[in-house]
Amino acid sequence: MTQYKIVIDTLGSDKGPEAIILGASLALKNFPELFVTLVGPKALIKEKIRLFGIDTSRVKIIPAEETITNTENPYTGIIKKPQASVVKALQEVGLEEENYIGMISAGNSGAIIMGSFKYLSDENKTRPCMAAIMPNDNHSFTCLVDTGATIDCTPSQLHSFARLGSDLMKKIYNLDSPRVGLLSNGAEPTKGNHLVKETFPILSSDPDINFVGNIEGNRSLSGDCDVLVCDGFAGNQVLKNTEGIAMSIIGDIVALSRKKHEPKYMEVVEHLMKKYDLSALGGGLVLGVRKLVIKARGNSDERAIVNIARMLINHANEEAFYTEQTF
Amino acid sequence: MTQYKIVIDTLGSDKGPEAIILGASLALKNFPELFVTLVGPKALIKEKIRLFGIDTSRVKIIPAEETITNTENPYTGIIKKPQASVVKALQEVGLEEENYIGMISAGNSGAIIMGSFKYLSDENKTRPCMAAIMPNDNHSFTCLVDTGATIDCTPSQLHSFARLGSDLMKKIYNLDSPRVGLLSNGAEPTKGNHLVKETFPILSSDPDINFVGNIEGNRSLSGDCDVLVCDGFAGNQVLKNTEGIAMSIIGDIVALSRKKHEPKYMEVVEHLMKKYDLSALGGGLVLGVRKLVIKARGNSDERAIVNIARMLINHANEEAFYTEQTF
Repeated sequence: MTQYKIVIDTLGSDKGPEAIILGASLALKNFPELFVTLVGPKALIKEKIRLFGIDTSRVKIIPAEETITNTENPYTGIIKKPQASVVKALQEVGLEEENYIGMISAGNSGAIIMGSFKYLSDENKTRPCMAAIMPNDNHSFTCLVDTGATIDCTPSQLHSFARLGSDLMKKIYNLDSPRVGLLSNGAEPTKGNHLVKETFPILSSDPDINFVGNIEGNRSLSGDCDVLVCDGFAGNQVLKNTEGIAMSIIGDIVALSRKKHEPKYMEVVEHLMKKYDLSALGGGLVLGVRKLVIKARGNSDERAIVNIARMLINHANEEAFYTEQTF
Repeated sequence: MTQYKIVIDTLGSDKGPEAIILGASLALKNFPELFVTLVGPKALIKEKIRLFGIDTSRVKIIPAEETITNTENPYTGIIKKPQASVVKALQEVGLEEENYIGMISAGNSGAIIMGSFKYLSDENKTRPCMAAIMPNDNHSFTCLVDTGATIDCTPSQLHSFARLGSDLMKKIYNLDSPRVGLLSNGAEPTKGNHLVKETFPILSSDPDINFVGNIEGNRSLSGDCDVLVCDGFAGNQVLKNTEGIAMSIIGDIVALSRKKHEPKYMEVVEHLMKKYDLSALGGGLVLGVRKLVIKARGNSDERAIVNIARMLINHANEEAFYTEQTF
């Protein structure tokens, strides 16, 4: 049986290391070919793993007590805290001899991105980017790249993001030729800011990309494309605006349910929460580095960890046998 | 009694001139101080106005049969079709002696923006912009500037948009000191692309603007600011993404209602449609020109015309006595 080895940083989650360790334990139960290296408080990890009845030969523990908090500057955090759990996790996942498929951390996003650049740079790629896998109207998923790692981009960086996003969707969802769209302010090839106008012909002429043209903001999650390419500033707007509007609408329905004394409306809320609860879907993926690094959302629970572990296994396995996305 | 004179282009709407003329008639019924100049098919306008029992002394008709369609290039359309209804309407609203407060058109957006620049440029302002008034979570409204008139902006243009949006919200909603936010990829002053970072100190140091700092995408319609400033590319994303996500969620609820055979869920749909039916709210406002020009959405119905007429009167009237936003 193929073994899949991943590293999990147990510190940095809003829910404490327990939720992450529980997620790791559930993933080990669910995926018999999985081996996990847990970075964090050794005694706690040992205790929890034992309680769960996990075969300890499938678990390696790297002790770490220090974290880079969300209010700390990511760059100085990485430099000044070599003992931080995220730094230890990134160093571990990069070890050639261990042959890990990737890692998960719910810590400081900036530190994860900066640390990935520092410890896992891939010289073949122009620049790493941050991807998010979002639910779309076709009951499928769209990969948004970049969601905020690179704020002011060049056309060649967008080109690289298109290739990285396309590769990711091929591997995770077993797509032959993912459709790549370019986020713009109009569908016509003449629309866009300078960056988009210069990137359009580059994507059009790359035979390795199935470029489907410009995608307008109202179609960003319509399912018209499998990969949506944009600079980190625009991508951050799409990601956060989607979340903001969804949460605002959910809030509207909760208020309506109370006002009208109609508990049935809360069934609609539950349905929407499932689709738009992005914490269950994982979080951001750092692409363009030697290993797949996944930033779990700060409020991730055990389901998120199991789903991300599945995503990592799917990514490593050409046949993508764990096709169910949500746990 | 103060008279308020506006120009309405009756052509260019997806619903035909009848809907626009009906809207104008309803506005005349509702606002006794309103006088309307209708540009379009003379015989039809006369017939409809008569059917509605409107005092014809409050209506002026300017005949026009030609339109610039939505598929036409706006710039060449403006140049090649001097008889187009939107061109005639823009020329009319600019006449000094008529003293109009503004105009409404549901035609080609680009032609309205280009035509506004051509016929109504205001030399005191750096550059016109397109604003949208969006519903926010505080049961109030946020003015988004720019929504797509200027795609690649300079910091001084964003500064100008902030002042224009602030002036608009003072006038329409009678706000003393509208809170101005800058759309960014993080709330901290250090976040943003080059444009945002350069604009931040300019907005901070303008004593005429109540600048509240950077606003993240998930807070864009939270009500944290009354005016949200961004370049036309990002603003177009916020506008269209909001619409796209709202429509996607509404579609989800309709599908759920059918699947579960639960007609009660459709009450939630009706509630959301009211808030997110942006056609009832009006459309885009061209700011920074000598007259307030409002682009009604292509699918605008009579309610939209009445609401926009109210907005124009409120804008002209310092006391803003028509405070109800939706009809």
